[in-house]
Amino acid sequence: MERIPILKMGETLLVTIQVDMHDKIAAALEEDLTARIAETGARGVLIDISSLEIVDSFIGRMLDNIAGVSRMLDAETVVCGMRPAVAITLVELGLSLSGVKTALNVERGMELIRKRLDSDGEAYAGLEE
Amino acid sequence: MERIPILKMGETLLVTIQVDMHDKIAAALEEDLTARIAETGARGVLIDISSLEIVDSFIGRMLDNIAGVSRMLDAETVVCGMRPAVAITLVELGLSLSGVKTALNVERGMELIRKRLDSDGEAYAGLEE
Repeated sequence: MERIPILKMGETLLVTIQVDMHDKIAAALEEDLTARIAETGARGVLIDISSLEIVDSFIGRMLDNIAGVSRMLDAETVVCGMRPAVAITLVELGLSLSGVKTALNVERGMELIRKRLDSDGEAYAGLEE
Repeated sequence: MERIPILKMGETLLVTIQVDMHDKIAAALEEDLTARIAETGARGVLIDISSLEIVDSFIGRMLDNIAGVSRMLDAETVVCGMRPAVAITLVELGLSLSGVKTALNVERGMELIRKRLDSDGEAYAGLEE
């Protein structure tokens, strides 16, 4: 079965979605991602959807699910590279992806995750004092 | 037409190959990559092939081509995530990918490119003295 590769870059896991998502691939991705978060202790998940021309309610729900599960494992999910047309369609569909942070591109997404890690670092330092 | 997304991360362009490569996709990828290198001034190209179970002579040649063209534009190509079985097959096929640097995973590939940038920086600094 086809699987979407998950790339570890520092404390972030990067996923680029290029193929048409269907039930099995989506379920496998969720499973693989949670396993990798647990295994690596990653604090951020970056999902690039720049090659997706259509994001329907199924993919929207999948992204929401992944973000929800990752949050439980203390990792933040950022979706990046969304095309303007996709954003318009999502809003028209009434899917606001409220549980998911978005960024314009991978670089900004990385920055978002890094900032969160930094502020967490300060919070931990505050606890130690 | 399907296109493989190219992600810019600092001075590196990252490509994850997940789909079956055929002539058109390979040609489009080469074209897109050279355009992005010229546009962004990227110094490294990282190609992740961890999801490829088979690398035949066609893909081998494509990787070689991309590395050759990138080198002309002063960007280094690193192929990462090759499966052990793929490496065995490539050697058996007599394809040694001599023009391509390889790394075990994306993190090490990034490190390789960063090291090259650092040593270039020193070389430039030497010229300025």
